[in-house]
Amino acid sequence: MIKKNLMVGQSGGPSSAINATLAGVISAASASDKVDRILGTFHGIEGVLRENTIDLTGFSELDKLAATPAMALGSCRFKLPSDQSDPVYRQILQKLMEWNVGWFLYIGGNDSMDTVRKLSEYCQEQKRLNPALDVPVIFGLPKTIDNDLSGCDHTPGYGSAARYLAVTMQELIRDTAIYALPSVTIVEIMGRNAGWLTLAAGLPRFMGGAKPDIIAIPEVPFDEEAFLSKIRALHRQTHSVIVAVSEGIKDKNGEYVGSSSKSGAVDVFGHVYLSGVGKYLEQLIKHKIGCKVRSIELNLMQRCSAHLASQADLTESFGIGAYGTRQALSGVTGRMAVILRKFGPDGKYEPYYGCEDIEKCANYEKLVPEKWFDLEDPKVQREILAYIQPLTKGAAPQFTDEYGNPDYINWLQYSSAEGQVHAARLP
Amino acid sequence: MIKKNLMVGQSGGPSSAINATLAGVISAASASDKVDRILGTFHGIEGVLRENTIDLTGFSELDKLAATPAMALGSCRFKLPSDQSDPVYRQILQKLMEWNVGWFLYIGGNDSMDTVRKLSEYCQEQKRLNPALDVPVIFGLPKTIDNDLSGCDHTPGYGSAARYLAVTMQELIRDTAIYALPSVTIVEIMGRNAGWLTLAAGLPRFMGGAKPDIIAIPEVPFDEEAFLSKIRALHRQTHSVIVAVSEGIKDKNGEYVGSSSKSGAVDVFGHVYLSGVGKYLEQLIKHKIGCKVRSIELNLMQRCSAHLASQADLTESFGIGAYGTRQALSGVTGRMAVILRKFGPDGKYEPYYGCEDIEKCANYEKLVPEKWFDLEDPKVQREILAYIQPLTKGAAPQFTDEYGNPDYINWLQYSSAEGQVHAARLP
Repeated sequence: MIKKNLMVGQSGGPSSAINATLAGVISAASASDKVDRILGTFHGIEGVLRENTIDLTGFSELDKLAATPAMALGSCRFKLPSDQSDPVYRQILQKLMEWNVGWFLYIGGNDSMDTVRKLSEYCQEQKRLNPALDVPVIFGLPKTIDNDLSGCDHTPGYGSAARYLAVTMQELIRDTAIYALPSVTIVEIMGRNAGWLTLAAGLPRFMGGAKPDIIAIPEVPFDEEAFLSKIRALHRQTHSVIVAVSEGIKDKNGEYVGSSSKSGAVDVFGHVYLSGVGKYLEQLIKHKIGCKVRSIELNLMQRCSAHLASQADLTESFGIGAYGTRQALSGVTGRMAVILRKFGPDGKYEPYYGCEDIEKCANYEKLVPEKWFDLEDPKVQREILAYIQPLTKGAAPQFTDEYGNPDYINWLQYSSAEGQVHAARLP
Repeated sequence: MIKKNLMVGQSGGPSSAINATLAGVISAASASDKVDRILGTFHGIEGVLRENTIDLTGFSELDKLAATPAMALGSCRFKLPSDQSDPVYRQILQKLMEWNVGWFLYIGGNDSMDTVRKLSEYCQEQKRLNPALDVPVIFGLPKTIDNDLSGCDHTPGYGSAARYLAVTMQELIRDTAIYALPSVTIVEIMGRNAGWLTLAAGLPRFMGGAKPDIIAIPEVPFDEEAFLSKIRALHRQTHSVIVAVSEGIKDKNGEYVGSSSKSGAVDVFGHVYLSGVGKYLEQLIKHKIGCKVRSIELNLMQRCSAHLASQADLTESFGIGAYGTRQALSGVTGRMAVILRKFGPDGKYEPYYGCEDIEKCANYEKLVPEKWFDLEDPKVQREILAYIQPLTKGAAPQFTDEYGNPDYINWLQYSSAEGQVHAARLP
């Protein structure tokens, strides 16, 4: 058998679990007798174009890699053009073939899956035009803390972010409860359109606690007057009101709340670049109610706090990486792996993996379902708990020195901006 | 022997270790045959005035209490007037004597120690006027994440905040390193005048890493032009520049950086209420350099993230609570306990406790010493490491359910705003 090389890259925004998926890829690739060398591309598809890659063959510190937050191979926001006659397609395919890459695995979010789909289509089209051409398999492995991917039960990375949010909310509840004075604390959580992360911040409430008092998700239109009235009513029962709010909440007209105070900037994918609904609500309460008020943006910590990674999430993220690699090695191209859920004979949560069309999954955002909009309903609270809690289960092992300082994988030190470093070797 | 009751309260801002000190008080008081009942006052001295207290006698979940963030007994920002003929002094003493309180221990920051000093002076003056009067001992136990107390080596609570900052900085370094684009990330850290917490965020650098690239503390005048030049120079060597900055950095005239954009509001103790140096620097870089820039405020998480509490800090915080209680039981009044440092025969860090004048400790802020201002100096870096690292050592045990949800002490549920609840009993 003629062996080929397997290449893997990462793209999009970081999570605490995306390196666990990379570890799963390396594990499955190492176990296959089809694979010669395992290559990593730095900064996703950009590393292919710039020949900025690393040889990962024989790398064995998989547990430590899985515990490292963000992308060990770096990321990019590179978007392939729609027009497949653009020379970039040819350049990428040439490089992959020159390096004898038989399988290209791409770990990322919706936009990265778009790259997988386009690149696979391009390769298949070239193969159709020239059947002798030995084009690589292109396969997608999802990650997003946002949990907004359809065609699956949940996404790798969501469980760890959810665990961070639930634990941090429990701590903020204690911190803000200490003064016998009316106060409001706004906790702003990531989520442009989907409220999944904010639901996780609501876990202390859904578990039977009193807080967070108000949970606002983008799927449910936000009414400022009703919000202020609710705070006034809550202050008759409790000193410290806590609000968990998605960054992307919208009013009844679909306008982002506080959007007039926004810059209107958009990122490279044309998404509205948001910041500041927390600050906006803080000012609103200061002016309309006048009590002590503070806003907290959980910012990057909600996606990179690997010290709070969920073991369940890391296990599944590793598992989907290994599963997807086996699918790719068997020749499946242009598709992505997904995590699904079943219940064992004792009702116990059991994740399993599947293979899905990228178009079906990545082009439709999975939002919080309408049946869960009434977050005061005990039945809804039980259903949300049953959905999220198995994903947050277990503390991931920590790799630290004697002072508790994290000991992480640092491959990016071998990355070269200039691109001379084709397949740097691990020391 | 006629037994008396011991009362304990908490005041000022929260930390992850202040309940460990409370646990130390309960432990030492329980072990003493002088103590009849152990009473807690909710919301510090306010709970005395409002008769809002709880009977803690026999409470035994000390480890769980120590692992609970913020104040289990609540806090207050109550400041005793300078004029000791004010009736509030008489009211407090009357309540304490009525409840047969022989010892009153107050855990808090500088402002709480001010209360200890004034109240002890008042009691001693009343005793002088009427020697038959059986006035209580008043004793102070420090806590502040800020580490700005003089007369001691470091403060209870600092080690846990330092551990949070060092770990979070390591994670943010990974998160911000992934894109091959010039960027600046500003991490804003608590500290009006003292840079101790920001030095802790600098640990990854002092340990030999490259980041955070810039560390700005209030003790060293901040020059905006030099800051911008340094970022431009750094961008020739690295994509992602990380800045760790104290909220209270000042220019060469002693003005808070960006202060013109501040409200000028002051809190009840007359401190300038700061927010937003991170946002200010973000805007500055956006306008003057124009690269991708983000600011992150670590906000309340740096003081309440009990899941990252340092075992060394919790052990010492418990120890100082027990030590101070024994001092108070032996009749020491109007003083406070402090943590000191010695080195064992093998050069090993060994904390010990002492008893200090409050005036000496609490009225002078301990700032980062001038000999440490050059943070690029390897000798300075080694000294800072040797000072901070023993305080961050060890992961504190976590009390959680099977899903990782923290299981914390929740005494505040027995607190009464109306004050009818004199000495609620634990269930």
